[in-house]
Amino acid sequence: MTAYDYDLFVIGGGSGGVRAGRVAASLGKRVAIAEEYRFGGTCVIRGCVPKKLFVYASQYHEHFEDAVGYGWEVGASSFDWKKLIAAKDREIARLEGLYRKGLENNGAEILETRAELVDSHTIRLVKTGKTVTAEKIVIATGGAPNPHAALPGHELCISSNEAFDLPELPRSILIAGGGYIAVEFANIFHGLGVDVTLIYRGKEILSRFDHDMRQGLHKAMVEKGIRIVLTDVIEEVTKAAAGGLVARTMNGETIAVDTIMLALGRDPNTTGLGLEAAGVEVNERGAIVVDRYSRTSVPHIYALGDVTDRVQLTPVAIHEAMCFIETEYRNNPTAPDHDLIATAVFSQPEIGTVGLSEEEAAKRCPELEVYRAEFRPMKATLSGRAEKMIMKLVVDAQSRKVVGAHILGHDAGEMAQLLGISLKAGVTKDDFDRTMAVHPTASEELVTMYNPSYRVKNGERV
Amino acid sequence: MTAYDYDLFVIGGGSGGVRAGRVAASLGKRVAIAEEYRFGGTCVIRGCVPKKLFVYASQYHEHFEDAVGYGWEVGASSFDWKKLIAAKDREIARLEGLYRKGLENNGAEILETRAELVDSHTIRLVKTGKTVTAEKIVIATGGAPNPHAALPGHELCISSNEAFDLPELPRSILIAGGGYIAVEFANIFHGLGVDVTLIYRGKEILSRFDHDMRQGLHKAMVEKGIRIVLTDVIEEVTKAAAGGLVARTMNGETIAVDTIMLALGRDPNTTGLGLEAAGVEVNERGAIVVDRYSRTSVPHIYALGDVTDRVQLTPVAIHEAMCFIETEYRNNPTAPDHDLIATAVFSQPEIGTVGLSEEEAAKRCPELEVYRAEFRPMKATLSGRAEKMIMKLVVDAQSRKVVGAHILGHDAGEMAQLLGISLKAGVTKDDFDRTMAVHPTASEELVTMYNPSYRVKNGERV
Repeated sequence: MTAYDYDLFVIGGGSGGVRAGRVAASLGKRVAIAEEYRFGGTCVIRGCVPKKLFVYASQYHEHFEDAVGYGWEVGASSFDWKKLIAAKDREIARLEGLYRKGLENNGAEILETRAELVDSHTIRLVKTGKTVTAEKIVIATGGAPNPHAALPGHELCISSNEAFDLPELPRSILIAGGGYIAVEFANIFHGLGVDVTLIYRGKEILSRFDHDMRQGLHKAMVEKGIRIVLTDVIEEVTKAAAGGLVARTMNGETIAVDTIMLALGRDPNTTGLGLEAAGVEVNERGAIVVDRYSRTSVPHIYALGDVTDRVQLTPVAIHEAMCFIETEYRNNPTAPDHDLIATAVFSQPEIGTVGLSEEEAAKRCPELEVYRAEFRPMKATLSGRAEKMIMKLVVDAQSRKVVGAHILGHDAGEMAQLLGISLKAGVTKDDFDRTMAVHPTASEELVTMYNPSYRVKNGERV
Repeated sequence: MTAYDYDLFVIGGGSGGVRAGRVAASLGKRVAIAEEYRFGGTCVIRGCVPKKLFVYASQYHEHFEDAVGYGWEVGASSFDWKKLIAAKDREIARLEGLYRKGLENNGAEILETRAELVDSHTIRLVKTGKTVTAEKIVIATGGAPNPHAALPGHELCISSNEAFDLPELPRSILIAGGGYIAVEFANIFHGLGVDVTLIYRGKEILSRFDHDMRQGLHKAMVEKGIRIVLTDVIEEVTKAAAGGLVARTMNGETIAVDTIMLALGRDPNTTGLGLEAAGVEVNERGAIVVDRYSRTSVPHIYALGDVTDRVQLTPVAIHEAMCFIETEYRNNPTAPDHDLIATAVFSQPEIGTVGLSEEEAAKRCPELEVYRAEFRPMKATLSGRAEKMIMKLVVDAQSRKVVGAHILGHDAGEMAQLLGISLKAGVTKDDFDRTMAVHPTASEELVTMYNPSYRVKNGERV
């Protein structure tokens, strides 16, 4: 008989925490899970899910326009931001309910409170002040947008958190950042009729992505009317006399807009958690340091998901949770596998990618074959939309393995998911070549690129 | 120096013939290609391409409806069939031009005439009556809709050929057949506002497809308002006094509609081709008999594509053409590979499939694991559309290989293309399990079905 109140205490009700708590409870463990805000975490409440719903909403105006080329006449349309927000909120409430129900049905105790560590086995429930003890603890508190407190006027700006619940749709927005969140919101707001400017300190958006994806998306965004300001940063934000905000940039520009959104990275949620008292180490970024099994410096305390700052993705947090269960409760020590993770950027056009960018592959492989196709998708022929898809395979010439696959265009995320299976299984370019095309599809390009577009030898394109 | 006028004479300017002719010409062969109608074949002129354009056109009304759930208000819309036809015709003319240009640029001679064999090396050009000779001949004359001449009143009906160019959009249509052409057109016409009835002699549409695909599509079609009449056939078609047509069925129904379309299979185009004079064998269906290299009973005459009635798909005809080139002109005998061909049915919802149906797999494998998910796609949550996706993996329990993958829903064709790579490479269910999900996508279901929905042992579901 254990001397602890719980076998497992989970701090944080996001994707990783809920999965760990739910499955541990289903195995008969006495589990409590504490969440100070809402169950579902970033993904459900203010991340993946509402983001994708906004993406859908922002694409309809293109459908209305494209329909004309197909023989349709469409009456005037208008968009009501408040209706979208309300519909989104109902869906999120439904999903949150499912998360709670999954926990309850398996017998996990739900605690609606912030929880902080007192020592390595004791947790204080902030709402009541009560303390409880647990044999094992999982910290899955996630992350939050970096507020960029060093920026004068940052308190006048919003982050993605607020973007999901703006009381009014702004007429104009300036988004600072070049990562996927900045890029996704730039396209969402543009699609909803907002005048969008993106400002990014780097030379090209989406660093670390394959250059064809970066440049292809940049070009498409500019062509549809999004302004992109590169190698520049906001130095000060002030209120304008006539309402709205003014951003002054490093390069001396003055940009007046209704709203400014900062998308400058995300920080692990570790402040005030009592980590020091419990003996849990954090790194210089404030992220909890874990070993390959997600174990912290305290052996019976694990940390999962964004709070560890490994790979900030929902499925990865869930995978880490399942590995924790295997390791601790199924006597099967399992380290999460972070290799070859397919991802999508739900920009418009979308990016789907798995494996190495050409640049990264060129550093690792003495010789590459690059297969690249850029084409107008069939739907665009009648719609007349100026839109190109880019598909690219990066092949290690020695092993013939496809080490990177990159897609820009409709359904790129779905395609990346399925290419992920192939790359994870280590298929070769010959396997692609042996596959019969499905006609007419866009993805058939991926199996009909028989000759390399070019080669890269020792890092040099030849 | 050869005694023949041409090294290669190709009869038929469709996908297979054009590819064979173009590549042979690019290798320096003296090539002529004869086409009596238009270059591009069934695929470009009255098949895959215009079909998919019609599918796009027929989906817009759903976008207009779905937009409302996302906060849009959309004015009244109307559809103009003649505008669609004109736009489609322009696109087809453009594609036909590309086919011609590809031939011309490589030095193939284009002959706009029907061509018939006089003997095994001699071809008569029907337009001029001139005869020419060739060392080798490729027959790629394709197929045509079966006119069902035994049906009284069949001459009052249309086939898919005419469906692409109807002068007016009918208010109502009766489509006979349960294959993919019947099903695709039923959904197209329904989407364009036509009252659609499908009549099929079998117990379920789309024979040979996995039963979940057949039933899932059937259900979805009925739910949106398409009437499906099973185990019945049209016995007579007559003109109605008030205009339009009346079909009398075997089961005694009388169906009055504007238009009746017969989609009862396709026949190889071999009539009057002079095959007997040349010594080329055909089978009881009129299809040219070929060996595994696509060689006919006359060793220097090949037949490619639909005229051989092997697998009636554009990419297959192209693949057979490339194998012909390897075999005859590159000294590399290559038999076409017809195994594990991924295909799509562009119904609405779409079907994408590769490998064995559960029924077929159950006959071949002593034990199967079936993984099946049926869910509402994320987009439908806010649109409120009653729409389910079905995803299904059929796994040979012994080898762990995924022997069949079946998808019903949006983008199923794109997904099938990429699953085709995995299945062709022989990946196992464990490879699927090892793959990280891409969230939020629909296809992530395919990598997160960790436990079999059920098993099939010795043909029995357990």
